[in-house]
Amino acid sequence: MNRTQPRGAYPGGTVEPLTQPNPVIIVIFGAAGDLTWRKLVPALYTLFVDGWMPERFAIVGLDLKPMSDEEFRARLRSGVDEFSRCGRPDDDAWRLFASHLSYRSADLGSSEAYRMLAGLLEEQCGRWDLDAFIIHYLATPPALFEVIPPRLAAAGLARDRTGSRIVVEKPFGRDLESARALNRILTAVFDESQIFRIDHYLGKETVQNILAFRFANALFEPIWDRRYIDHVQVTVAEQIGIEHRGAYYERTGALRDMIQNHLVQILCLIAMEPPVSFDADEIRNRMTDVLRAIRPIHPDRVHESAVRGQYGAGWISGERVPAYRAEPGVSPGSTTETFAAIRFFVDNWRWQDIPFYMRTGKRMPARVSEVVIQFRPVPHQSFPATAIRDWQPNRLVLRIQPDEGILLRFQAKRPGLRVNLSPVDMHFFYREAFRAVPPEAYETLLVDVMLGDATLFKRTDQIEAAWSIMTPILEAWEVSSPPDFPNYAAGTWIVEPAEVLIARDGRNWLMPAASPRDRDEEK
Amino acid sequence: MNRTQPRGAYPGGTVEPLTQPNPVIIVIFGAAGDLTWRKLVPALYTLFVDGWMPERFAIVGLDLKPMSDEEFRARLRSGVDEFSRCGRPDDDAWRLFASHLSYRSADLGSSEAYRMLAGLLEEQCGRWDLDAFIIHYLATPPALFEVIPPRLAAAGLARDRTGSRIVVEKPFGRDLESARALNRILTAVFDESQIFRIDHYLGKETVQNILAFRFANALFEPIWDRRYIDHVQVTVAEQIGIEHRGAYYERTGALRDMIQNHLVQILCLIAMEPPVSFDADEIRNRMTDVLRAIRPIHPDRVHESAVRGQYGAGWISGERVPAYRAEPGVSPGSTTETFAAIRFFVDNWRWQDIPFYMRTGKRMPARVSEVVIQFRPVPHQSFPATAIRDWQPNRLVLRIQPDEGILLRFQAKRPGLRVNLSPVDMHFFYREAFRAVPPEAYETLLVDVMLGDATLFKRTDQIEAAWSIMTPILEAWEVSSPPDFPNYAAGTWIVEPAEVLIARDGRNWLMPAASPRDRDEEK
Repeated sequence: MNRTQPRGAYPGGTVEPLTQPNPVIIVIFGAAGDLTWRKLVPALYTLFVDGWMPERFAIVGLDLKPMSDEEFRARLRSGVDEFSRCGRPDDDAWRLFASHLSYRSADLGSSEAYRMLAGLLEEQCGRWDLDAFIIHYLATPPALFEVIPPRLAAAGLARDRTGSRIVVEKPFGRDLESARALNRILTAVFDESQIFRIDHYLGKETVQNILAFRFANALFEPIWDRRYIDHVQVTVAEQIGIEHRGAYYERTGALRDMIQNHLVQILCLIAMEPPVSFDADEIRNRMTDVLRAIRPIHPDRVHESAVRGQYGAGWISGERVPAYRAEPGVSPGSTTETFAAIRFFVDNWRWQDIPFYMRTGKRMPARVSEVVIQFRPVPHQSFPATAIRDWQPNRLVLRIQPDEGILLRFQAKRPGLRVNLSPVDMHFFYREAFRAVPPEAYETLLVDVMLGDATLFKRTDQIEAAWSIMTPILEAWEVSSPPDFPNYAAGTWIVEPAEVLIARDGRNWLMPAASPRDRDEEK
Repeated sequence: MNRTQPRGAYPGGTVEPLTQPNPVIIVIFGAAGDLTWRKLVPALYTLFVDGWMPERFAIVGLDLKPMSDEEFRARLRSGVDEFSRCGRPDDDAWRLFASHLSYRSADLGSSEAYRMLAGLLEEQCGRWDLDAFIIHYLATPPALFEVIPPRLAAAGLARDRTGSRIVVEKPFGRDLESARALNRILTAVFDESQIFRIDHYLGKETVQNILAFRFANALFEPIWDRRYIDHVQVTVAEQIGIEHRGAYYERTGALRDMIQNHLVQILCLIAMEPPVSFDADEIRNRMTDVLRAIRPIHPDRVHESAVRGQYGAGWISGERVPAYRAEPGVSPGSTTETFAAIRFFVDNWRWQDIPFYMRTGKRMPARVSEVVIQFRPVPHQSFPATAIRDWQPNRLVLRIQPDEGILLRFQAKRPGLRVNLSPVDMHFFYREAFRAVPPEAYETLLVDVMLGDATLFKRTDQIEAAWSIMTPILEAWEVSSPPDFPNYAAGTWIVEPAEVLIARDGRNWLMPAASPRDRDEEK
């Protein structure tokens, strides 16, 4: 990479700063909240230190809570200390960064707040003698997502303001109808190109790497279809429970929290056709094509394609953990699912009749996200029966976390005097190959917002198509309560209905190892 | 693997013995020579200790040199001490093994020797009260290859003797005519199924592994053709010179010594069609198909497809080494090639117009054998120009030695905030995966001879087809002396005419690393 002298705001920065030299003002709505403290400001601080921030920038926090600038900065410093990828800041660097931070207490439901904000932005731009572009970052509870945009528009801070952008966190609606309503509110006052809907999963390195793996290599695309692939499995397992978010989770569940956004996006990356270019709209068109090709699940046959689970008490890493229904904020008779498994089909030439099995759950034995491409068997087995007792079809594992990497399972001859085949893994680990710590998802996404690159953000049609797919499942699960919750013990991979779902097709879930390195040890 | 109680000759054996319980007598012609001492008996000893030898076996050495059984055994023990894969034998095991060894001094050109041998075999079988099957192993200088078979026949030890087999070492002829003559002599007295022509390269684990890799996996076969492969490179580089074999090498050269047998066999394994089964004749039919499809080189255009080199003085591992012409036994004006590079085409549907570049040389910087499958570029480059400055097409490296393994070079996104692709290697090493030392080639081949499995041995038609391909090159090189020998310095990869050969096609030789692990370090 061509490294030039840093020209960013921080003299120690080692990378080229934004190619856009315009000053930027980031307004964080909900600045007293957890996301700002834990994710946004630690990511912004790392970008600053690495030289990615333009020379002139300001971060303005807004929230209901009264706080002075100094209190705000002290609070954020504790978050940077704890969560920043680049470690605890040294005092000089922090002082320089903190001079860009300010805070205003405001009732985000009142017009007053937005007049104040308009004045503040005006003043800041005046001081710089330049038009800054402004990023409105909605890090608030979802109820405010509908409130803020019209008030920004009324204060002249939306479409008519050149270079203004709005970032909306998840959840983006809780069903098709609410997502559509929210889209109507946003698009009434912002152009689609100004709107950045976050799915932080898309900011992760290895999710982006799926694009590179598929489309920068001539080797895999010819076998990436129904002729060679038997099925695909996507697993996103969490070891944690719901932490302290019981009230939130009760209204959400695994389907809305994980499948509708993260897992469906991964499915799109795996199944999409090759893009003409890496233009944001080109990529998103190809991803939307997949969503539109997903076979609708018939409302009467949801049980054949989608199953749910809820964890009971159990053991995680040798520690006793409570059942979901015993978590604070959760109803003792809760029917919210903490696990979901769904079988999708993609009705197009490439994927007709190839199942995509997706599953996600809380309180699984390990935190692991991976995509398994399971290939068909060889068309003809030339080896003698004695040689292939351990034979398995090929399998490609795209490991998202932990230990990001790629495994290719193939058959090799065991060293020895007779022919005897065994499955082995060819492997690649990003950390080993590049010896670099990948950026946090929020770093990637914040830089993209500043550069105006929307590739990794979700467009109106993507959001609505994803909700459409979920609608029959959401509706079926709403009206029929699961009779058997809790139906899996915390700390196990085995969720009975998910086993039945895949076994009916003559297949089985492939056991993820805690680390791909452990797989090697299995043998 | 289903391990049963050992029933072999050695009580400590850990594997199943030969499935053929018949006693075997191995007669080694040329038993006082280097091959017996360095390769054959160390391999037989390892087979014995591992339990592969049948309960009743005898090894009879014949050679001109007078030696007692005791002297013979002492000599072989020193070879086992030095070369056996299972290390220095313990005294008990050796004593047991040595009791199967005997030696007779004999003039292998006289009929007398064969009458003596017939009597000896008769006596041995009588003692066992069973018909032993007999393996005649020709480990003699090539001149005797023509002498021994008719004399074996005259003594009733060839075709008419049930279960007798003959093993012939290389070189098998020195051109098409002499190979045909030798085949006529052999096939006059043995059936083709009794003849085992050794190419010890085919006994190596990873050469056999090419078959497993290609045909036990559904993943690679669909891209294994001219649509996806740009070209193939086979490199077999030796670091050693000609050691003390000057006189032999002067009459041989790199083309006869390496290309005609080893490299052409590897080409067959890479290019062959999938076999119906692992039946020896099926595999050899498919390999012969490749030989028959190799485009004949026109006698007037040999220089466009084949080039040669001879090393001058230079440096190997920091040590000064002499020029080939200064080696003992070599003529000071020698025109023998110590390096050869050839471009082949395989005229069939799968490989039409895809070049196979083969090269081999002595006094190269490292000892390395590998096959590189270079794939075509992606059909359309979707990534922006800034992302693909380091882009390379995919490459599959089948590493034969050292550090046997498989590398798959592909493009991955460099961790970081911008898309930036870099070539990286997914890798697999046999030793790492199986934690086992593979058997020596001679162990594999000797077991195969005992089991009568001829898959890894060369049939009459293979031998003759391989010589046919070489004929125009041999003839052209015979009549036109190279004007510029020596034309490469010991210790360099760069042999000028080979560079020109491949550069004319717009390609270049890919630099093998001393170890594939070093490749990772390059970055």
